[in-house]
Amino acid sequence: MKIALAQLNYHIGNFDYNTNKIIEVLNQQKKLGTHLVVFAELSVCGYPPRDFLEYPSFVEMCDKAVQKIALASTGIACIIGSPAKNPLPKGKNLFNAAYFIANGKIRATVKKALLPTYDVFDEYRYFEPAQQFDCVDFMGYKIALTVCEDLWNMGDNPLYTTCPMDELIKQQPHLMINIAASPFNYTQQKTRKAILQQNCQKYNLPLFYVNQVGAQTELIFDGGSTVLDKNGKTLAQLNYFEEQIQVFDFENMGLAFADVTETPTTATEQIYHALVLGIRDYFQKSGFTKATLGLSGGIDSALVCALAAEALGADNVLAVLMPSKHSSNHSIKDAEDLVKNLGCKSITLPIASIAQTFEDILKPAFNNLPQNIAEENLQARSRGVLLMALSNKLGYVLLNTSNKSETAVGYGTLYGDMCGAIAVIGDCYKTQVYQLCDFINRDKEIIPQNTITKPPSAELRPNQKDSDSLPDYDLLDKVLFHYIEESKSAQEIMALGYPEATVSRILNLVNNAEFKRYQTPPILRVSPKAFGMGRRMPIVCKYLV
Amino acid sequence: MKIALAQLNYHIGNFDYNTNKIIEVLNQQKKLGTHLVVFAELSVCGYPPRDFLEYPSFVEMCDKAVQKIALASTGIACIIGSPAKNPLPKGKNLFNAAYFIANGKIRATVKKALLPTYDVFDEYRYFEPAQQFDCVDFMGYKIALTVCEDLWNMGDNPLYTTCPMDELIKQQPHLMINIAASPFNYTQQKTRKAILQQNCQKYNLPLFYVNQVGAQTELIFDGGSTVLDKNGKTLAQLNYFEEQIQVFDFENMGLAFADVTETPTTATEQIYHALVLGIRDYFQKSGFTKATLGLSGGIDSALVCALAAEALGADNVLAVLMPSKHSSNHSIKDAEDLVKNLGCKSITLPIASIAQTFEDILKPAFNNLPQNIAEENLQARSRGVLLMALSNKLGYVLLNTSNKSETAVGYGTLYGDMCGAIAVIGDCYKTQVYQLCDFINRDKEIIPQNTITKPPSAELRPNQKDSDSLPDYDLLDKVLFHYIEESKSAQEIMALGYPEATVSRILNLVNNAEFKRYQTPPILRVSPKAFGMGRRMPIVCKYLV
Repeated sequence: MKIALAQLNYHIGNFDYNTNKIIEVLNQQKKLGTHLVVFAELSVCGYPPRDFLEYPSFVEMCDKAVQKIALASTGIACIIGSPAKNPLPKGKNLFNAAYFIANGKIRATVKKALLPTYDVFDEYRYFEPAQQFDCVDFMGYKIALTVCEDLWNMGDNPLYTTCPMDELIKQQPHLMINIAASPFNYTQQKTRKAILQQNCQKYNLPLFYVNQVGAQTELIFDGGSTVLDKNGKTLAQLNYFEEQIQVFDFENMGLAFADVTETPTTATEQIYHALVLGIRDYFQKSGFTKATLGLSGGIDSALVCALAAEALGADNVLAVLMPSKHSSNHSIKDAEDLVKNLGCKSITLPIASIAQTFEDILKPAFNNLPQNIAEENLQARSRGVLLMALSNKLGYVLLNTSNKSETAVGYGTLYGDMCGAIAVIGDCYKTQVYQLCDFINRDKEIIPQNTITKPPSAELRPNQKDSDSLPDYDLLDKVLFHYIEESKSAQEIMALGYPEATVSRILNLVNNAEFKRYQTPPILRVSPKAFGMGRRMPIVCKYLV
Repeated sequence: MKIALAQLNYHIGNFDYNTNKIIEVLNQQKKLGTHLVVFAELSVCGYPPRDFLEYPSFVEMCDKAVQKIALASTGIACIIGSPAKNPLPKGKNLFNAAYFIANGKIRATVKKALLPTYDVFDEYRYFEPAQQFDCVDFMGYKIALTVCEDLWNMGDNPLYTTCPMDELIKQQPHLMINIAASPFNYTQQKTRKAILQQNCQKYNLPLFYVNQVGAQTELIFDGGSTVLDKNGKTLAQLNYFEEQIQVFDFENMGLAFADVTETPTTATEQIYHALVLGIRDYFQKSGFTKATLGLSGGIDSALVCALAAEALGADNVLAVLMPSKHSSNHSIKDAEDLVKNLGCKSITLPIASIAQTFEDILKPAFNNLPQNIAEENLQARSRGVLLMALSNKLGYVLLNTSNKSETAVGYGTLYGDMCGAIAVIGDCYKTQVYQLCDFINRDKEIIPQNTITKPPSAELRPNQKDSDSLPDYDLLDKVLFHYIEESKSAQEIMALGYPEATVSRILNLVNNAEFKRYQTPPILRVSPKAFGMGRRMPIVCKYLV
């Protein structure tokens, strides 16, 4: 039995595109003598379809696409993912299903039992969990077919009370196949492989695992589809962050691919590739080609500019330098050096006269009150208005350059530097921003060394430094990680040895910035806990600190 | 058995406040000889606590508050809502529970079985559903105690496969008590009463129902706690939109309150009270007192200004008039008339010089391209910057004035008129905006008649009218309602008799504005389907139209 793992990049809601892509692969694989082609979870509509699933017309389109793919699969079998209607009156109206199609007919509809509803996942919003478990017979083999999370109920404190494989194993299957939509974060490749290996070992079965690849707004799917033997040994490993199809002969397990070894990659390298894919897919799938951003000479915008140049081509990137009266000379030079190194376009729009015009008009209202954050924000917002004007006039999409540290503590101006269509590095702490720049500079200097070494500054008042307002980023990022990624309380963080006043101050800043983060652009997710739909905090409330 | 319904307004995460409030009521009721006081769902921490529940320290605070309330309930019994830890290793770590406390001790912990996970609700994100059902014995009565959604699994196509009351009824209870956190929308009071009545009739039992009251950011809880007899007849009806406590003698059902009749109110009147409460609680619970907004002379900002004056007092509202070269004379006069009628404060900041300064700086970049949306947005964004500067300098909180029709079709400027901390009328269609103004003017003219009768205009270019770019609001709002509230497809809407081109155009506008809505402020929810967390659409995707 020859099984093809089809790791593809789908476009949510684009049935023509997804269906044609699937059928094209089926036609290719027929010629190669493949028996079964495995596609990813909800491959027919793309994952996550979100509230599209509440539109009956959308579900009809899914059904039609399944029918079309079934018709095209004469002389071959395939597994595709699509919602399936619940025929029973009780319970939610849909299942998240894997369709097993062979020779033009739907042979089985396997429903997902474990519906992830945490972090960025909302599956119980739409789907009824499966209560019944049956293997699929194909070419004399019994296949334990499951959907993504169905394999993830391991460990001493499992999230679900049922375990699909514990039921399926009773039917003595010969192999497991799992179709997935498992998004990237920098811990996920290791975690995912460990979970898959545990399943092989627990059930003493080989596993064919197919994940989707490609970015869907903020979620980046890294692929990494794999074949494991019954001991959990990797027999095939598809590439991360790109489409790939690989055929595997089930009868010759452990022969052809016995020498697969995985090259370990650093978290930084993974994040780099994820962000490039995230930008590229945002643009390609939205039909845009050109990006703009404000280039300050600082490290955050430099990194975003370099990532955008890699993702879209330097020609398609317009860097906008917007010096104010507080901008230092080195900032302008650093920005210009980067533009030269990347070969992207740039223009310079000084903002001093705008900020002055605003201040003049506001003078009577401000009533001689001392300078404060208001004047600083006027500059940041003047820049935001200029960038959006360029976007509106010239068709550039604005990239947001805020990092996770400043997004966390609210060190950014709403409607100013928080503008943008997509926040490229909004899930990267400042310390990770440095690591990414070092990675980009690994062979030669692309991001100017001075951008990396100078002390970070917003340059919104004379001689301002980030360190005037914030703890050092090394300390800040560690405390933020304990609070955001690890859900630790102030007391627990202090107990780790961090100064009480610093912890209180940081947590207060995070909590008070919740209203800002609500209005932030979608953030490319690369960590296990990104701001956005994966972290849903009340705005009006009393926070514990 | 004397039962008190305690319909209170809680502050999420404010354990001292909530606990003291509950204990105060218990002490009062002890003196009155009440036997059992019923509080709302998750009353201890406030509803919805969202991802606070992922912080173990938060759950500890809940437990401590429950203990404190238990200690205070000597000589009386109460039902409070709080999360309860799941002692079993399998499944989610928490239950959404009703604690039955009597004479200082927790007598029962009743767990919620039906976990709403649709629209604005995310309960399966946090909670394990109950699998076991037991009545609570108290003073010789068997009480079927349930939590909110547990009573809502009615009809021919129920959302859940289990029905808690079908289990509890087997134990032959004498009455039902339900503690709830059921948010307002303009259809909810009728729907809710009907569901509660159906339960009484189906199980032939009286029902004591306690809902919370008060706004929690975008969700507005309207209270409306009630007592129904076994026929579903209303024996007691607590007020909507305010705190109230009422004691009811269970042995004298149908006597003392036999003449309760509900005064029907219109949807418009309900929405009015909801929005006033929504603004008031946003400010009170955040510790703010003063609001500002841009007052254009148009109907949307006039309505928000009137609502804010009612909620916060006219003294606390600063209306900002920001005429441009395209503003008509009547706009300024209409705005000034409203300020006079309300007695709020106002200032005038003309924006022509700012817009001009922006255009001058952008001239080389704009490269003589024709005027377009870019110049219009410059004006809207200049206003946004001025309003935020006043907010930053003077401590006013900016109210957003976008209505649902324009939010739907993207007829608004991101970082311009889409700025604000809370979108007051973002869930009211333009046609509802008119109805609300008529309601406000029911006794005397508060909103100037000219504001109501003149054709709507954004006044961003000479002689602009909304009707240049959009269908008439009567038609637009109907099509939007079919698409957004009813999840109908373009084909289904056309089949209702709307012109094909108009429907396509409107749906395309809605879909293309998804990226804008992602960055909109939280919207006070008054409809069954508001933009925000209740409608989660993909951004990068291909929409069906």
